[in-house]
Amino acid sequence: KRRGIPEVIFAETKELDEIKKITKRTLEKTNSVIVSRIKKSDYPKILAFAKRLKVKIKTGKNSSSLLLYNKPIKFQGGKVGIMTAGTSDIGVAEEARLMCEAMNCKCITSYDVGVAGIQRVFPILKEMVNEEVDCIIVAAGMEGALATLVSTLVDIPIIGIPTSVGYGYGEKGIAALASMLQSCSLGLSVVNIDNGIAAGGIAANIANRAIKKNNLK
Amino acid sequence: KRRGIPEVIFAETKELDEIKKITKRTLEKTNSVIVSRIKKSDYPKILAFAKRLKVKIKTGKNSSSLLLYNKPIKFQGGKVGIMTAGTSDIGVAEEARLMCEAMNCKCITSYDVGVAGIQRVFPILKEMVNEEVDCIIVAAGMEGALATLVSTLVDIPIIGIPTSVGYGYGEKGIAALASMLQSCSLGLSVVNIDNGIAAGGIAANIANRAIKKNNLK
Amino acid sequence: KRRGIPEVIFAETKELDEIKKITKRTLEKTNSVIVSRIKKSDYPKILAFAKRLKVKIKTGKNSSSLLLYNKPIKFQGGKVGIMTAGTSDIGVAEEARLMCEAMNCKCITSYDVGVAGIQRVFPILKEMVNEEVDCIIVAAGMEGALATLVSTLVDIPIIGIPTSVGYGYGEKGIAALASMLQSCSLGLSVVNIDNGIAAGGIAANIANRAIKKNNLK
Amino acid sequence: KRRGIPEVIFAETKELDEIKKITKRTLEKTNSVIVSRIKKSDYPKILAFAKRLKVKIKTGKNSSSLLLYNKPIKFQGGKVGIMTAGTSDIGVAEEARLMCEAMNCKCITSYDVGVAGIQRVFPILKEMVNEEVDCIIVAAGMEGALATLVSTLVDIPIIGIPTSVGYGYGEKGIAALASMLQSCSLGLSVVNIDNGIAAGGIAANIANRAIKKNNLK
Amino acid sequence: KRRGIPEVIFAETKELDEIKKITKRTLEKTNSVIVSRIKKSDYPKILAFAKRLKVKIKTGKNSSSLLLYNKPIKFQGGKVGIMTAGTSDIGVAEEARLMCEAMNCKCITSYDVGVAGIQRVFPILKEMVNEEVDCIIVAAGMEGALATLVSTLVDIPIIGIPTSVGYGYGEKGIAALASMLQSCSLGLSVVNIDNGIAAGGIAANIANRAIKKNNLK
Amino acid sequence: KRRGIPEVIFAETKELDEIKKITKRTLEKTNSVIVSRIKKSDYPKILAFAKRLKVKIKTGKNSSSLLLYNKPIKFQGGKVGIMTAGTSDIGVAEEARLMCEAMNCKCITSYDVGVAGIQRVFPILKEMVNEEVDCIIVAAGMEGALATLVSTLVDIPIIGIPTSVGYGYGEKGIAALASMLQSCSLGLSVVNIDNGIAAGGIAANIANRAIKKNNLK
Amino acid sequence: KRRGIPEVIFAETKELDEIKKITKRTLEKTNSVIVSRIKKSDYPKILAFAKRLKVKIKTGKNSSSLLLYNKPIKFQGGKVGIMTAGTSDIGVAEEARLMCEAMNCKCITSYDVGVAGIQRVFPILKEMVNEEVDCIIVAAGMEGALATLVSTLVDIPIIGIPTSVGYGYGEKGIAALASMLQSCSLGLSVVNIDNGIAAGGIAANIANRAIKKNNLK
Amino acid sequence: KRRGIPEVIFAETKELDEIKKITKRTLEKTNSVIVSRIKKSDYPKILAFAKRLKVKIKTGKNSSSLLLYNKPIKFQGGKVGIMTAGTSDIGVAEEARLMCEAMNCKCITSYDVGVAGIQRVFPILKEMVNEEVDCIIVAAGMEGALATLVSTLVDIPIIGIPTSVGYGYGEKGIAALASMLQSCSLGLSVVNIDNGIAAGGIAANIANRAIKKNNLK
Ligand SMILES: Nc1ncnc2c1ncn2[C@@H]1O[C@H](COP(=O)(O)O)[C@@H](O)[C@H]1O
Ligand SMILES: Nc1ncnc2c1ncn2[C@@H]1O[C@H](COP(=O)(O)O)[C@@H](O)[C@H]1O
Ligand SMILES: Nc1ncnc2c1ncn2[C@@H]1O[C@H](COP(=O)(O)O)[C@@H](O)[C@H]1O
Ligand SMILES: Nc1ncnc2c1ncn2[C@@H]1O[C@H](COP(=O)(O)O)[C@@H](O)[C@H]1O
Ligand SMILES: [Mg+2]
Ligand SMILES: [Mg+2]
Ligand SMILES: [Mg+2]
Ligand SMILES: [Mg+2]
Ligand SMILES: [Mg+2]
Ligand SMILES: [Mg+2]
Ligand SMILES: [Mg+2]
Ligand SMILES: [Mg+2]
Repeated sequence: KRRGIPEVIFAETKELDEIKKITKRTLEKTNSVIVSRIKKSDYPKILAFAKRLKVKIKTGKNSSSLLLYNKPIKFQGGKVGIMTAGTSDIGVAEEARLMCEAMNCKCITSYDVGVAGIQRVFPILKEMVNEEVDCIIVAAGMEGALATLVSTLVDIPIIGIPTSVGYGYGEKGIAALASMLQSCSLGLSVVNIDNGIAAGGIAANIANRAIKKNNLK
Repeated sequence: KRRGIPEVIFAETKELDEIKKITKRTLEKTNSVIVSRIKKSDYPKILAFAKRLKVKIKTGKNSSSLLLYNKPIKFQGGKVGIMTAGTSDIGVAEEARLMCEAMNCKCITSYDVGVAGIQRVFPILKEMVNEEVDCIIVAAGMEGALATLVSTLVDIPIIGIPTSVGYGYGEKGIAALASMLQSCSLGLSVVNIDNGIAAGGIAANIANRAIKKNNLK
Repeated sequence: KRRGIPEVIFAETKELDEIKKITKRTLEKTNSVIVSRIKKSDYPKILAFAKRLKVKIKTGKNSSSLLLYNKPIKFQGGKVGIMTAGTSDIGVAEEARLMCEAMNCKCITSYDVGVAGIQRVFPILKEMVNEEVDCIIVAAGMEGALATLVSTLVDIPIIGIPTSVGYGYGEKGIAALASMLQSCSLGLSVVNIDNGIAAGGIAANIANRAIKKNNLK
Repeated sequence: KRRGIPEVIFAETKELDEIKKITKRTLEKTNSVIVSRIKKSDYPKILAFAKRLKVKIKTGKNSSSLLLYNKPIKFQGGKVGIMTAGTSDIGVAEEARLMCEAMNCKCITSYDVGVAGIQRVFPILKEMVNEEVDCIIVAAGMEGALATLVSTLVDIPIIGIPTSVGYGYGEKGIAALASMLQSCSLGLSVVNIDNGIAAGGIAANIANRAIKKNNLK
Repeated sequence: KRRGIPEVIFAETKELDEIKKITKRTLEKTNSVIVSRIKKSDYPKILAFAKRLKVKIKTGKNSSSLLLYNKPIKFQGGKVGIMTAGTSDIGVAEEARLMCEAMNCKCITSYDVGVAGIQRVFPILKEMVNEEVDCIIVAAGMEGALATLVSTLVDIPIIGIPTSVGYGYGEKGIAALASMLQSCSLGLSVVNIDNGIAAGGIAANIANRAIKKNNLK
Repeated sequence: KRRGIPEVIFAETKELDEIKKITKRTLEKTNSVIVSRIKKSDYPKILAFAKRLKVKIKTGKNSSSLLLYNKPIKFQGGKVGIMTAGTSDIGVAEEARLMCEAMNCKCITSYDVGVAGIQRVFPILKEMVNEEVDCIIVAAGMEGALATLVSTLVDIPIIGIPTSVGYGYGEKGIAALASMLQSCSLGLSVVNIDNGIAAGGIAANIANRAIKKNNLK
Repeated sequence: KRRGIPEVIFAETKELDEIKKITKRTLEKTNSVIVSRIKKSDYPKILAFAKRLKVKIKTGKNSSSLLLYNKPIKFQGGKVGIMTAGTSDIGVAEEARLMCEAMNCKCITSYDVGVAGIQRVFPILKEMVNEEVDCIIVAAGMEGALATLVSTLVDIPIIGIPTSVGYGYGEKGIAALASMLQSCSLGLSVVNIDNGIAAGGIAANIANRAIKKNNLK
Repeated sequence: KRRGIPEVIFAETKELDEIKKITKRTLEKTNSVIVSRIKKSDYPKILAFAKRLKVKIKTGKNSSSLLLYNKPIKFQGGKVGIMTAGTSDIGVAEEARLMCEAMNCKCITSYDVGVAGIQRVFPILKEMVNEEVDCIIVAAGMEGALATLVSTLVDIPIIGIPTSVGYGYGEKGIAALASMLQSCSLGLSVVNIDNGIAAGGIAANIANRAIKKNNLK
């Protein structure tokens, strides 16, 4: 059995009652659960439900996902850096953060970095390098160029999340996905559009791996 | 009648004999013609044919296009900068150069700039700014990030040419096209994949426009 | 730093509060800002907010974008012509106009030109030529033929905006985009579907460039 | 049983021997057969085979199709006009002509009309109107604008054939097809890309219908 | 000027006020106008507006289009048959009928023919043949097989309208469109998905053509 | 372990030597193997190799697949009917037949049925019903209408194979696939384009299942 | 006439009144009817209507389809197993169950099997094998891997239903469909995305076939 | 400057002479270079050229890439596991191995694992876990299910490479890519189709990171 990955409930295609039932059942068996992609109208109801369950709650800015847990989560895992190109990408980035934290990783976030202001990228990356993050998640929509840019600048493994920001040809994250997959810079792999959960999962796996090996020594 | 744009013969879908006939006929009526996208096997034959016609010839490095003309072309038009991300984009860039030159523009070229080595982009752009180019053409394949990067750095109009370099998802220039169209940097417009002719045409129009106004004063 | 391009806030993927905050902050630092692609329900609220801020406001007919500014904008830049094929394209064209005006260009507009009535195109173009516009923006949906037609008739640089008007195969601007990219007429480059902002940005860059050179003399 | 439509053998996906066998068998049962989309290497062999069969042969310029028949075909049917935008579209247009002639229609052709030279379209259409053609076939590649243009100018039914001429986004006839389907001009319907046979079939049906009714009177 | 085709106002992308204004203005200049693809909520309002204008009105079953006219329309044109595969295709078929009638054609309709019950197709076609229709419009969604079937059975020109009925792969009319374009049966051409207006336009052109020639005799 | 399905070697992406090695090794372990999608130039070499191995060989008309086996195959399984719309679909249909026979099924084939000649479909289906086939495979390219037609006429399970026959929009089997998936007739499921192996596999499973149950009684 | 397949009314594209009228009419002629893909707001109204009609009703969990019938349905047909990968696929699976039951098949269902917990698949399949199901339906969204997995483990015919669960690249069932069609495991065929009706129809045909042959003995 | 990633020359779009020149120049500046995606006809020539250069050479089985280097490469980096679903995926996997080795990683490979024989996957993964690999690369074509399967079984970071193996819908790696991106199993990220270089680059980055941290202690 894999211990690292928490239960994740995809709420989008489920009825409110189903979500509540599965959430309750899961928190009786394990310490934490992420309820992700909650419909806007269901969000306050699930939040209230979680409060009635008397479990602890972490929310993410602009995010439709929630992290619920019984006992405090210890940050004894690795360290993950999370960046976004714009403010519209923050919700997805926060979902990744919740996932990383559920998997015991510390997160350093830097949102709305842009590529239009290249000079802002350098100091942010410098800090992440100094903090010795084990992996950097880059969430970017439209043409997704930030992921390429970052991965040309550091040797840290990069996980790109194309986001569904943009309109016209290549909308819904398609341009960003294509762009990240075609990136001529090496050291970058990607997850599906808007999939902060998947990005958090692999980033935490990478970061925790480094720590685990350390601890085994 | 538009005087600015030379005749262009798309050779790819024509038989060798048709190309020769149209070329000959055109050069009897106008000073210059571009024969573009010549099949590899037809290229030397058309070159030889042009020599027999005793017209002047300009070729482009790695390019399948030829510029043929009777009287020397004067560079009294505007100035155009041309950059490529990689060496594989040079053929397309050269096609654009031939078009610009046929339209009386001076060209400054800088090939294989890359984005992997960002620091190489700055001095090149500085030179182009100093040279007062009126327009910059950027040819880039794969994820096409160079066009975005350049257009965030200068106020000069940029024409992006996505090139059909790359493989896998987004191949055949699709990722580069989507990426340039989605670019969050403003000041960039695009032509179709590998269409150096179209890029040259609009760039020269832009550059010559600036000059024309000047001269009117 | 690039001085030509104003700040543009893409409102579509932002919460109302975020939009207000960023708008306010931006107008404290710079003279003008465009808030673009505002959700229908947010539009009157942002308009009211702008009034409370006591900044000047320019709206566009049928457009979801707003131009907000502190001090009057001087039209010392170049001149841009803007045409639409139908009445449904006007909103996008107006967005381009706001952008051009924010960048100090004078605009001449001619909406609902159509291609069905070809004879109406000629006098409009004649006027634009006489007015010495430096660039023409053509917004067209469905099969987008107007952009091709216009660019066969004048040597002025044309920026095509495919619009998302139409239904069935090639809907959402895809046919118009493909058609403009495939155009066998030279002198045309395009921006993404419905992207009036991008079209305005490059058109103004082109037009201002011509003027700048003039002024340098 | 339908008498109007001749047998058509799609040669592209058949072995040479199969084609010969089916051709022979068909000409023993009916007066005419079209062998269409013959592989380049098979073409001379099928031509030679037809000569050995002692049947009559009509070929089309640049076309990969052949019309074979026993007894002379009478042109007692309707009249069809056929136009192409470029010289590269001629092969497909000729295939349509062979089909129309096999179905007893007279054809008036006008190839390489272009849209770049709009003024050339008017006299051609005038002639076709004067000749009282019952239907006009327009073959055009790239952005396929000629079909739209023609159908805005006359009340005659137009059949558009998008051709697979062009490269980059919208290549292989996709832009032309989308463009013709999206055409805001009414009076136009289309067949599949490069399908001269289908265009000829429906055009001849239309033209012969008009005649038939006439004759019934 | 083309006299055959009435004015058509595409209401979908227009504001209610614009639609009313254009409708009124058009009916002052010409006898009839079709307002097509009216938003559900605008439909009763436009109907009421038309009544206030005291013009005559024809509606179509399940259709979002209206035919408005001043003087009675005479059916001195040709005859058009209209069939649908299912009940869901009726709205689009009725739009085609309104267009045909606006163009003076008599229409014979037969809806919900299906392909599942092949035997029902034969008597319907028989009747249309007996009625000497000049053209048959076939509206079909999902796999669109009815258009192929009908065109294998008669020599009358067929106009296929793929409809956006269906779900899953090939939904939104894409399968029906592809299927009709690929049809191995000859005598069929198509218009865009759900485009009853275009189908009516070309069908009426075909039918009226036959009559016109007759009358000229 | 599943006993019903034979080993299948996809030859297309393998070197000749690899194919030979795997073939030999497999025939030492099991009674039969299908080598499928053999490159044209490899086909005679693999045939010769099989002869040297002294194994029995079954070939298919126009097919790139081979069935090799040691001991005679008994037809104690179910019965499968196989139809094709055109002669170009025969190769794929034969591949399905080889697969069915390798799985001990008797096959009844009827090739080049067409939909243009509907009346030919009825007697063929009647025979298959009389023969009590347990499943019918229908291979069809272009618009793939034959599969829909057949499945409206019998209650026997139908497996559709879209074939890559056709050109233009919907080419490479895409129209046929979409059409079969969208089919409004029930009783039809599909395999991938040109995948005779998969069709044979499921058809034989269906047919053998019926027999197995019988035998258990 | 085919007796096996019940009438199915696709409610999604029909008005409530039409649905009621057709439902009533059908139940007067035949014993059962399935009303499928009912709009959420119509569902309770159709349920109430059915109660007023005094017919028997079967509903499916999370399903938008209803089975209505006059006389009790006998389960004298074959046996079908139905599995889903997740809880979001249950609605579609239940639609398939209603169809199978309308066709007299017994159904064994096992929902939310997942692929993440592979060990849960084995006992479920074991039970289905023991129950001697004649066919297994597998409904799965996202990457649809469960269908491949199941079909590698048993020789029973598998019908895959890709469901429209998932987001990002390959959403709306496209990844699941592609994955099932590409499956390297043999014995699997598919129906269109979310098409539980089609899956139920072919599965019941398969299962009833086996029984029928038995009974004939 | 990034030290971890070696120079990679994409040979596919370059002339032989260019490749040689760049290769030579690169090996004078750095210790190693990978020449990737060499055209079949260029491969032996580049091999011979490398021998003349007297540099060391590593080739990959079935791979079109070469690793050239001056001084022996030390395996002081991390450890990477590499698996393929089929034998056709080996070339791509080997390209990844060359990249990993150029980046000082030890590699454990296990090719042609399949998903048809699930039981073979378990012992292979067990060995990789025992060997303490830091990352596993999974190359799979067709439906790409192996990547999902592996990532459900271990907590090690997985990099999926979709390969262009397969035909029909979802061919050229598209189904495998969609499937891996949609994977409901967490811990998986992907690179572009056939991009062994990119997979090797990120995998080595991950593996070396773990070691680096260790060594810092
Ligand atoms: N730094 C880069 N930015 C964008 N594209 C690049 C870059 N470097 C190479 N490419 C693309 O990668 C392809 C191969 O590069 P090269 O090996 O230099 O020919 C070219 O088409 C370039 O467009
Ligand atoms: N004026 C035009 N309008 C539309 N398509 C054109 C025009 N001129 C050329 N083309 C297309 O461009 C392609 C090449 O033209 P040509 O060089 O004349 O063969 C042809 O397929 C034409 O369809
Ligand atoms: N009647 C038909 N129905 C569906 N497809 C057909 C029909 N006739 C021919 N085809 C397709 O057209 C292609 C060419 O037919 P043929 O010339 O007989 O090989 C084949 O792939 C057939 O699938
Ligand atoms: N068990 C499998 N799972 C996923 N893909 C497979 C499997 N077996 C073979 N393949 C794919 O099928 C293709 C052909 O397999 P092979 O014949 O072993 O080369 C390869 O690209 C594999 O990726
Ligand atoms: Mg920002
Ligand atoms: Mg380079
Ligand atoms: Mg208009
Ligand atoms: Mg031409
Ligand atoms: Mg019906
Ligand atoms: Mg045939
Ligand atoms: Mg589940
Ligand atoms: Mg294998």
